[in-house]
Amino acid sequence: MEVKAGELLEQIHYPSDLKKLTESDLERVCKELRQYIIDVVSVNGGHFAASLGVVELTVALQYVLNTPYDQLVWDVGHQAYGHKILTGRRSSFHTNRIYKGISGFPKRGESVFDTFGVGHSSTSISAALGMAVASTYKGETDRQHVAVIGDGAMTAGLAFEALNHAGIENSNLLVILNDNCMSIDPNVGALKEYLTDITTSKSYNRFRDDISHVLGKISELGPNAHQIVKKLEKSIKGTLLKKSNFFEALKFRYFGPIDGHDVKHLVKVLKDLRDIPGPKLLHCVTVKGKGFALAEKDQTKWHAPGLFDKITGEIKRTVPDKPQPPKYQDVFGHTLLELAEKNSKIMGITPAMPSGSSLNIMMKAMPDRAFDVGIAEQHAVTFSAGLATQGLVPFCNIYSSFMQRAYDQVIHDVAIQKLNVVFCLDRAGLAGADGPTHHGAYDIAFMRCIPNLVVSAPMNEEELRNLMYTAQLQDMGPFVIRYPRGNGVMPHWQTPMKAIPVGKGRKICDGEDVAVLTIGTTGNEALKAFVELNAEGIHPAHYDMRFVKPLDEELLHEIFQKFKNLVIVEDGCVVGGFGSAVLEFMADNGYAATVIRLGIPDKVIEHGEQPELWAECGYDAQAIMNVTRKLTVTRTTSSIAS
Amino acid sequence: MEVKAGELLEQIHYPSDLKKLTESDLERVCKELRQYIIDVVSVNGGHFAASLGVVELTVALQYVLNTPYDQLVWDVGHQAYGHKILTGRRSSFHTNRIYKGISGFPKRGESVFDTFGVGHSSTSISAALGMAVASTYKGETDRQHVAVIGDGAMTAGLAFEALNHAGIENSNLLVILNDNCMSIDPNVGALKEYLTDITTSKSYNRFRDDISHVLGKISELGPNAHQIVKKLEKSIKGTLLKKSNFFEALKFRYFGPIDGHDVKHLVKVLKDLRDIPGPKLLHCVTVKGKGFALAEKDQTKWHAPGLFDKITGEIKRTVPDKPQPPKYQDVFGHTLLELAEKNSKIMGITPAMPSGSSLNIMMKAMPDRAFDVGIAEQHAVTFSAGLATQGLVPFCNIYSSFMQRAYDQVIHDVAIQKLNVVFCLDRAGLAGADGPTHHGAYDIAFMRCIPNLVVSAPMNEEELRNLMYTAQLQDMGPFVIRYPRGNGVMPHWQTPMKAIPVGKGRKICDGEDVAVLTIGTTGNEALKAFVELNAEGIHPAHYDMRFVKPLDEELLHEIFQKFKNLVIVEDGCVVGGFGSAVLEFMADNGYAATVIRLGIPDKVIEHGEQPELWAECGYDAQAIMNVTRKLTVTRTTSSIAS
Repeated sequence: MEVKAGELLEQIHYPSDLKKLTESDLERVCKELRQYIIDVVSVNGGHFAASLGVVELTVALQYVLNTPYDQLVWDVGHQAYGHKILTGRRSSFHTNRIYKGISGFPKRGESVFDTFGVGHSSTSISAALGMAVASTYKGETDRQHVAVIGDGAMTAGLAFEALNHAGIENSNLLVILNDNCMSIDPNVGALKEYLTDITTSKSYNRFRDDISHVLGKISELGPNAHQIVKKLEKSIKGTLLKKSNFFEALKFRYFGPIDGHDVKHLVKVLKDLRDIPGPKLLHCVTVKGKGFALAEKDQTKWHAPGLFDKITGEIKRTVPDKPQPPKYQDVFGHTLLELAEKNSKIMGITPAMPSGSSLNIMMKAMPDRAFDVGIAEQHAVTFSAGLATQGLVPFCNIYSSFMQRAYDQVIHDVAIQKLNVVFCLDRAGLAGADGPTHHGAYDIAFMRCIPNLVVSAPMNEEELRNLMYTAQLQDMGPFVIRYPRGNGVMPHWQTPMKAIPVGKGRKICDGEDVAVLTIGTTGNEALKAFVELNAEGIHPAHYDMRFVKPLDEELLHEIFQKFKNLVIVEDGCVVGGFGSAVLEFMADNGYAATVIRLGIPDKVIEHGEQPELWAECGYDAQAIMNVTRKLTVTRTTSSIAS
Repeated sequence: MEVKAGELLEQIHYPSDLKKLTESDLERVCKELRQYIIDVVSVNGGHFAASLGVVELTVALQYVLNTPYDQLVWDVGHQAYGHKILTGRRSSFHTNRIYKGISGFPKRGESVFDTFGVGHSSTSISAALGMAVASTYKGETDRQHVAVIGDGAMTAGLAFEALNHAGIENSNLLVILNDNCMSIDPNVGALKEYLTDITTSKSYNRFRDDISHVLGKISELGPNAHQIVKKLEKSIKGTLLKKSNFFEALKFRYFGPIDGHDVKHLVKVLKDLRDIPGPKLLHCVTVKGKGFALAEKDQTKWHAPGLFDKITGEIKRTVPDKPQPPKYQDVFGHTLLELAEKNSKIMGITPAMPSGSSLNIMMKAMPDRAFDVGIAEQHAVTFSAGLATQGLVPFCNIYSSFMQRAYDQVIHDVAIQKLNVVFCLDRAGLAGADGPTHHGAYDIAFMRCIPNLVVSAPMNEEELRNLMYTAQLQDMGPFVIRYPRGNGVMPHWQTPMKAIPVGKGRKICDGEDVAVLTIGTTGNEALKAFVELNAEGIHPAHYDMRFVKPLDEELLHEIFQKFKNLVIVEDGCVVGGFGSAVLEFMADNGYAATVIRLGIPDKVIEHGEQPELWAECGYDAQAIMNVTRKLTVTRTTSSIAS
């Protein structure tokens, strides 16, 4: 649905149009831009509160910078809706996050104003530094490079690594710290507390003022005072002002904190900063959800609220008339608490995803046993390993695509040492509207090559619960459970838990001609396919393999001895994935069969609803039907021919 | 070779023996321990300078702490030789890093005193925090948890993530910052400069003293002064001392800097720190190589010098009588400079491995185009991506096993955006004496599942040069070149470079019965095998496949059409590796053949010389011979039978 923009915004197609306005128009532009975001997101959905928080910053940056020559990198990109609207994408903004529509994140292919594709946090300083160093090398000394990064994203190691390098490069880099005390959930950690310190009453600036004031008073004390004051002043300026700030310790010039919602002041400050060479950091204090009262009040809920009534703030939910299957994340959250109540060794760990993973359920009930460690996947894993050395059983919940951030820690700190850490990989498989950066496409391939790991994928809620139950038993070693974003299939899911033998799959149904092997929730697509196939008189067998590693070799022997046609279905990349593991088994054991592997093909899959993407990739129920039919016909035809 | 220990050291088998000595004995213990390390390493090899630098710290820690109840985590572990010698491993220390001997790094399986296995840097704070949090949870309030971490390791993001979390956990954690200004190469970055600032003349402590002194003087100024001084003091103590230090900003109590070679003072300070609760950091200044003059002077050279004369300091090298093949790293280093001289777009990036990767050659010749970014693999990759957005061609050189640290950045920042970054993965395959943490075992498996990547492996020096040449041509997109630790096979390696068609392998020799497909330098093992096989009248074909991705499908069609027996050899994990890629091709194209995959089996491979490990894993020349013979016999037998 297209939405009408305000009068000024209506005239702005590109930043060049914005620049034609006077500074006194900017507040109105901000108002209209904010309203436009509210109008569109309320009816189309998407990320919400983050973009509202940076409306003034967005307008000021585009007003002052000469983009795209000057280079602006948004960290994460949740907050870049205003940026998109002001840079050529107002008319397509209603297609945001929709299949074949524009991306919910900055994306290089979409616009020259999107200098760097984002989605995962904390990349902006590294990327902008690369751009800045390139400009230095090319002699483009007038070019500006700006990274806008939240205080949440600043806690990730990558951001720190970039600061440490940028501090010694004399490149033209401005880091804008968008300090709103929030990740998706409230931000945590020492750095956050530090930033709060310096933005509240005992502020750094106020301290500087205090010192000046006191020095003035001392000067009045008499003739001897002058020399002492000079010495003190020198000492303070030389050491205190250089080192008294976290960022100045890292050789950045620090400016702020300033009000990130005062667009006029922002314009002034950004203009001034253009002329200051070298690495510098501007500390802006903003409110996530600014301008939409409910969002300001409950920022986690309004991070991405879905559709809502922009007047009443009522979030639109269809109320089902019967019990619905739960989200997998909630099955995880409730089950973990249930297990932890019985097993005192269980601990819960999330890197900044308490609400996204539903670990908040355990955090609320057992605050001493469940930890949000900030946006810090690497630390989450190695911290879990540390806990496991003490005989505890940490459940470390990390989205599949974010687990890519902690790959070395899984290998080096957990697998090599065979520590009993349970990795719950939420959002495994195609994640939907968040697109390529968030698809958990590769985890089966990158996990199954690691020794000592158990890698499993439940077909439904009951299986997820049983796998979680199994993983916390004595001396299981590292245990991976991957499950997708979204809802399960069992309205009554709180079944009694029981152990599953590690490495054992299960036969869902016997059959003939073709064996369909599924891993994880693709089994449910197979069930749908089988209804139609059976009606057509086609009766393939169905196996839910459960474990990528160890493979159920006994079951595979049975399958290969009986079937010459296999269909393997996975919600993961076909290159190196589960199907590939079955091919290894087949080759190692000298079997021959036609094996069709369905899964994510070897290309970048864009955004869209999960079923749209499954269809595109060819591993939904329809695709399973098609390939099974074909294999059955081949068999029938060839047996007739023979 | 066993070496005799000094009189006091001779009596120390475990820390309990050390504790029987008086504090006044400790200096002598340090002297004997240092001499013992020199004596053993000079004749057995291994890491050297790092352990010399922490002799006093090691003795003091074991004297004060109640290990293994108190938990001591050494970061990286290069420096833990003294620790090993004092904790039950003096008599086996001469087997250090030798096949079946003790590990060169702390290792949980080896001793209860090794609380956490290390090898990669910057894990210690996370791990020790996990242990500390576990103790808090269990009510073991008297238990000490100590992480010893270098200033180099402190620059990695993981360490920062851990500090950020530790700062808000009130656990009993002591971080000892072993500040010697060195990684393997001199340390770089803003944090290093900051630490240098506070340990040199304008030190933080001196500043504190200055302030006290000046305050005293002001007090003397008259009756009005008293109140002003109090206010100033409050302001300074409240704000300055809390925030004026990088680590205190992260809510750690900061102590130091102190002399890390004064064992008596160390004992005193460590005793005092035992009683201070919460997260605290002790800043120790040490000299890498302390006590061996040459090592103090050239710390990079003496990081792991090989065998040497402990009196003269002469490093023992056998002088060859004819030109020898170069190290692959040097082929990389010289070739990159050669290419960069012609292509002004080329930049070089290393995360703290200038000498290990030989990027130091380009860094010296072109300091504005080659960057050591510190121990920061993640940043190295995303920074490279930033450079690539500007049309430059960064060669980002990262050891294969360290690339695990930057996996997400390869996917998210480079591959999805199809940026032209060349990844040169040194130390790919089994790395040798450094053992499991350093084996580059998984890169083929974890790289080949990523879309848009080219993944290649040269068979020899000429091929490496040609692949590097190819990778820097226009719009190649992300391009991975993996090559092993150690020397190549071509004494005259500086051949003229030429482009290789991407995705094209080559036939080394035609043959019958069996096709041997090799990837990378395993091709040279095949060449050796073929000499014997040919002599026996066995003539397999040999293909150097060159590219893991894209596969040379044309060549594979040719191979599968001609051969029913394939041997695939790779210096990487067989699970999900190159052989698995060939099986996928075989299945997708309906071929049937016996395929034997040789490579690293699905288990943790310990340390040893590379040929020892290749033999153990079964993919050296001998193994290739054995399997090829067997397949030939099978064929011959069955053809006779038919």
